[in-house]
Amino acid sequence: MSPGGRRTGDSGTRAAILAAAREAFGAQGYGATSVRAVARTAQVDPSLVLHFFGSKDGLFEAVLALPIDPATVVAGLLAGGSDGLGERIVRTFLAVWDGSPGQGPMLAMLRSAVSHQDSAGMLRELLLRVILRPLAVGAGGDHPDRRAALLASQIVGLAMTRYVLKVEPVASAPADELAPLIGPTLQRYLAGALP
Amino acid sequence: MSPGGRRTGDSGTRAAILAAAREAFGAQGYGATSVRAVARTAQVDPSLVLHFFGSKDGLFEAVLALPIDPATVVAGLLAGGSDGLGERIVRTFLAVWDGSPGQGPMLAMLRSAVSHQDSAGMLRELLLRVILRPLAVGAGGDHPDRRAALLASQIVGLAMTRYVLKVEPVASAPADELAPLIGPTLQRYLAGALP
Repeated sequence: MSPGGRRTGDSGTRAAILAAAREAFGAQGYGATSVRAVARTAQVDPSLVLHFFGSKDGLFEAVLALPIDPATVVAGLLAGGSDGLGERIVRTFLAVWDGSPGQGPMLAMLRSAVSHQDSAGMLRELLLRVILRPLAVGAGGDHPDRRAALLASQIVGLAMTRYVLKVEPVASAPADELAPLIGPTLQRYLAGALP
Repeated sequence: MSPGGRRTGDSGTRAAILAAAREAFGAQGYGATSVRAVARTAQVDPSLVLHFFGSKDGLFEAVLALPIDPATVVAGLLAGGSDGLGERIVRTFLAVWDGSPGQGPMLAMLRSAVSHQDSAGMLRELLLRVILRPLAVGAGGDHPDRRAALLASQIVGLAMTRYVLKVEPVASAPADELAPLIGPTLQRYLAGALP
């Protein structure tokens, strides 16, 4: 700490900024969160936030980042082959979401996307370009954009039903119960014949 | 109009209050909207809002009300039999949503549900108890609660993908294209064998 009580660059600073940003984005959404307010909560100078993350967008992306690298997860899913890929996707998504404390990053994404076009665009980019389109391409189906959009419709709906609307029994069901229910839908969107 | 410029009870008053409420809920969500502010926009006394709608909750429910009575829509869907019910549900939902000017009520529902637990509960009630569970019961499947929750996961996801995240080609596709893509998912959730 500096004499003024601010962190000056220690190794915990980046983590403190991320924690403050996660809380702010989660509680208030993208639009109402300022770099200045995040810096204040993290007890750092705003310039340090920009030094680490470049911009508010960069900070948001860092907060949204899944606990594991999406590209690695996609490669791992595809390495198992096309059979049962839909079920494996459900299990992986649930493991990532349920593993986030309080589903914070997930809810932050959804909240911001629903109220801010910028955030909707960011979530769309993350979900479609980084995760679902590569899965559709890797599964070898035709029309990967169409398949990725259909995948999004079921996966985002699963998140909304489980974490936001809390519709039982989907809200509390373990992955072992949901994977065989939702997996076949994803499988058809990935690799089934489309009309 | 009264001498003070306020509406006093003419036949357009209820419609003016609903229009003001729809705009406020849509722009600001449930939590940030007050009966007082709605009354001001509609140029009526707040007591008149409560006279017509009972409470802020009642006002919200009136705003969320689909252009057609949900129970009538459900009965009409079921009257066509179980075959192709999934596709008919997609067509009906899209007709109702696409028919709302600017998707205002739909977005108001989603915005409020994502940021306010009360609103999430209200949407859950409307969607599950009034619409999807009766469809699951009518389609004759076992486990109607489970089937209704699964239906919700695809239908809410379709709304999010089409209207909020605007993922192409789902965002712009006509009902004739989406019904055969999404319909079979709903059909399986309604009447298919569940593991």
